[in-house]
Amino acid sequence: MIIYMMRKFVSGCVRNLSRYRSLSASQSRYLSSTSVLDFPSSASSTMASAPPSKSSAPVTVENINPKVVKCEYAVRGEIVTVAQKLQQELQAKPGSHPFDEILYCNIGNPQSLGQQPITFFREVLALCDHPAILDRSETQGLFSADAIERAWQVLDQIPGRATGAYSHSQGIQGLRDAIAAGIEARDGFPADPNDIFLTDGASPAVHMMMQLLTRSENDGILCPIPQYPLYSASIALHGGTLVPYYLDETTGWGLETSELKKQLEAAKSKGITVRALVVINPGNPTGQVLSDENQRDIVEFCKQEGLVLLADEVYQENVYVPEKKFHSFKKISRTMGYGEGDISLVSFQSVSKGYYGECGKRGGYMEVTGFGADVREQIYKVASVNLCSNISGQILASLVMNPPKVGDESYESYSAERDGILSSLARRAKTLEDAFNQLEGVTCNKAEGAMYLFPRISLPQKAIKAAEVANTAPDAFYCKRLLNATGIVFVPGSGFGQVPGTWHFRSTILPQEDKIPAVVLRLTEFHKGFMDEFRD
Amino acid sequence: MIIYMMRKFVSGCVRNLSRYRSLSASQSRYLSSTSVLDFPSSASSTMASAPPSKSSAPVTVENINPKVVKCEYAVRGEIVTVAQKLQQELQAKPGSHPFDEILYCNIGNPQSLGQQPITFFREVLALCDHPAILDRSETQGLFSADAIERAWQVLDQIPGRATGAYSHSQGIQGLRDAIAAGIEARDGFPADPNDIFLTDGASPAVHMMMQLLTRSENDGILCPIPQYPLYSASIALHGGTLVPYYLDETTGWGLETSELKKQLEAAKSKGITVRALVVINPGNPTGQVLSDENQRDIVEFCKQEGLVLLADEVYQENVYVPEKKFHSFKKISRTMGYGEGDISLVSFQSVSKGYYGECGKRGGYMEVTGFGADVREQIYKVASVNLCSNISGQILASLVMNPPKVGDESYESYSAERDGILSSLARRAKTLEDAFNQLEGVTCNKAEGAMYLFPRISLPQKAIKAAEVANTAPDAFYCKRLLNATGIVFVPGSGFGQVPGTWHFRSTILPQEDKIPAVVLRLTEFHKGFMDEFRD
Repeated sequence: MIIYMMRKFVSGCVRNLSRYRSLSASQSRYLSSTSVLDFPSSASSTMASAPPSKSSAPVTVENINPKVVKCEYAVRGEIVTVAQKLQQELQAKPGSHPFDEILYCNIGNPQSLGQQPITFFREVLALCDHPAILDRSETQGLFSADAIERAWQVLDQIPGRATGAYSHSQGIQGLRDAIAAGIEARDGFPADPNDIFLTDGASPAVHMMMQLLTRSENDGILCPIPQYPLYSASIALHGGTLVPYYLDETTGWGLETSELKKQLEAAKSKGITVRALVVINPGNPTGQVLSDENQRDIVEFCKQEGLVLLADEVYQENVYVPEKKFHSFKKISRTMGYGEGDISLVSFQSVSKGYYGECGKRGGYMEVTGFGADVREQIYKVASVNLCSNISGQILASLVMNPPKVGDESYESYSAERDGILSSLARRAKTLEDAFNQLEGVTCNKAEGAMYLFPRISLPQKAIKAAEVANTAPDAFYCKRLLNATGIVFVPGSGFGQVPGTWHFRSTILPQEDKIPAVVLRLTEFHKGFMDEFRD
Repeated sequence: MIIYMMRKFVSGCVRNLSRYRSLSASQSRYLSSTSVLDFPSSASSTMASAPPSKSSAPVTVENINPKVVKCEYAVRGEIVTVAQKLQQELQAKPGSHPFDEILYCNIGNPQSLGQQPITFFREVLALCDHPAILDRSETQGLFSADAIERAWQVLDQIPGRATGAYSHSQGIQGLRDAIAAGIEARDGFPADPNDIFLTDGASPAVHMMMQLLTRSENDGILCPIPQYPLYSASIALHGGTLVPYYLDETTGWGLETSELKKQLEAAKSKGITVRALVVINPGNPTGQVLSDENQRDIVEFCKQEGLVLLADEVYQENVYVPEKKFHSFKKISRTMGYGEGDISLVSFQSVSKGYYGECGKRGGYMEVTGFGADVREQIYKVASVNLCSNISGQILASLVMNPPKVGDESYESYSAERDGILSSLARRAKTLEDAFNQLEGVTCNKAEGAMYLFPRISLPQKAIKAAEVANTAPDAFYCKRLLNATGIVFVPGSGFGQVPGTWHFRSTILPQEDKIPAVVLRLTEFHKGFMDEFRD
């Protein structure tokens, strides 16, 4: 039974939650190791201990691609599966649990929690989906004039106005022009539409770059710890090695180039060729916004070391503190005088984040600069195998980079919607940050940006022992207890990586404001009870 | 210069077009080899001869993932790049070429050539994009009543009616229920919504299965030759081996299990573990529709040999001859009495094909049956890393599997649109088929289904020699000449694979009917001139 459970955990999403007790390699990772070059690779060997599937089936977990088995993705992992089960039970039998709803704080999915879409964007999308109504008089009454005008503009950029056709594999030329114009307006430096690759959200763009850069397990990618697990998952799927660098929690999740240098050298000494550096700014799961100076250091480091800078900038519109401002890495590098020939830089953007939070539309792009024409041709080829990204997502990406401007009919309502969402997010971030800091043994850095808080929790030894008995990581033990007691879904820190021996959880700031008091109240009560139960 | 060109071709999309002359390994493939286990792999070794990129750039074609370099995708390859250039020249300088427009017959992209979307589908999509108008009185005048009703139904299936939220990673449960109901109605056998994985078009689903099944180059996938190059590209990207089986042109692109058996044994003798068989039905690029008997043989073969049957059924609604009918492989296997435990079967479907041709929406699904729960969990995990497919595509997939029914307000206009498209496609297929068969040295099988014809062309020795001098494959030479003379874009057979020493091209049947006479006339004139020029 224990072996079966091991296999189940190992083959499921949140494998690492279970490795704490059973697997000495993983144990050392949680407790003491600082050399975590093997971060994503320790799972594979454990598969040998799994019992075989029924032998008649040609495909079993034992004979599929081990890179798939190795890959982990905690954001939709075991804890979410449990939450969904609880939700079904609540629906089938109200009152069956000590809470009346599940409060999903596990994923940056704002509209699933009641955030309303930006009206202007949806008007344009609807009109582009059914252009036959553009000329009808009823349409004037239903849609704003500038949405109608924008829809015509978008359609005119699409050959044959065919929103149902595959586009150019990088995306529709006219929409890329609009996005490049938006980037120029943001940065004050030129952007080339031919550098834009539109993708179904940012995830496929990250996969494309990992696929391009990874030849074998000897190729490494420097990733922050904690990190958004898309990176570890993608590196595992493409057979590379995650080279971790630690963000410094004591300086508000600071990113020190001395740490980058140290980890790069450690990787080199193990025969790893480090190809790229991933930076997530604003941070996920950590919520910090990098300073210009820090960004300049990072650019300089990548230039000196010949690394591709993979800049996850999907939270560029989510900054909540007046003292910080988002600057793209392209802007920073151009400000330093570095151009196309000096640094290879990829910036990822998504329509899923920002104030709009249009996760279901799967729009996004990457801006690819500083690569030779022959390498770009290879990226284009891989994009072309999948033909193109979805056209609604492409249109939306062009809209978020070029929202209504002062003087447009929709400007006032648009900016009211945008500011309402952003100011509410800032309030929610502050309320949750304060609440976390009130909890015994919990410290939480400031939420400067993005959609998350990543508080640190000092768990009593008795709780750590209990987790061990339950065959789970201590932070996962805490999160599962919390879920079962309150319906609140946090993701354990072990899903993102953390300094060994420390424990965290990630909470989004996304529940609607009227739900926040309930989150705080239920969490605070639970935490007190938990600490009372396990206090050493 | 020649080396540069070689590198350019080798690193571009249609590498194989150039290998004819320069590369002996490839040459043997075109001319004499029948053992093509190395089908997609012959390019890699040639990369060594390419000159290095400027050494200062950290990323060069020489140090990226060789699997990416190896991958080829002819449908959007070099010939299309040339066509786009010609189109730009025509726009900039009308009259600069001996034709006034480019006639794209290279890709199954109906709406790019003027096919109009199905009104009902677009009405529902527009309403789901902007549900705020559902209650407005003007909406009644603009949209059909059943589209409004369907939009409400769809929205009620989405938690919180949030079309802007990430969904379950397999797709929205209620939409999967609807798709499963559509499959049941089609097949007369039960379908389980939990077997459905919604994807951004069929391509990502194919990639997921290739990724799952491929551990190393010693894992093989049986693919038809000719094949849709997504398969060779995906196998190359995931590092597996394409094991070819040849369709028999003389029996209307028949699929003989004796050939499957022969190629399977040949692969085994080379140490290849064959994991799966790809069948494309209706065929791409070949347009044939398999008989029930043939399908039963294929199912039996997969069961006996323990192969996963990967059934590309995206053209299931595109059948043009009364004597043939589409049957899904799931229906066939269930009719034979084989259930979940007997055969591992994946069926791919897409909203890009059918009569609706909604390529830009990137909707599709795979129905995954006959895998253990643990393997299914792995497939789910990989899907979850990318969060979900786009919601508009998900909605559309549910609509195409459940179009308006008799009695619905839209039924009459819907079925008129559908039948108009399908009967026109049948006429276009017949006209082109007849035209091809009129050309000297050209034979063309019947277009029973899908969207393509794949005529065989006997090229004079003098043309083959001229192609050799031009450093290109003979069929690519013909297609380039055709493009430059007429603006017609066909894809050379070498992009799909063909029996060595034979030459083909693929033409879609998709130009609108009023363009077909021009295609026939221009092609016929060109062909006569070409044959006159090169007749031995």
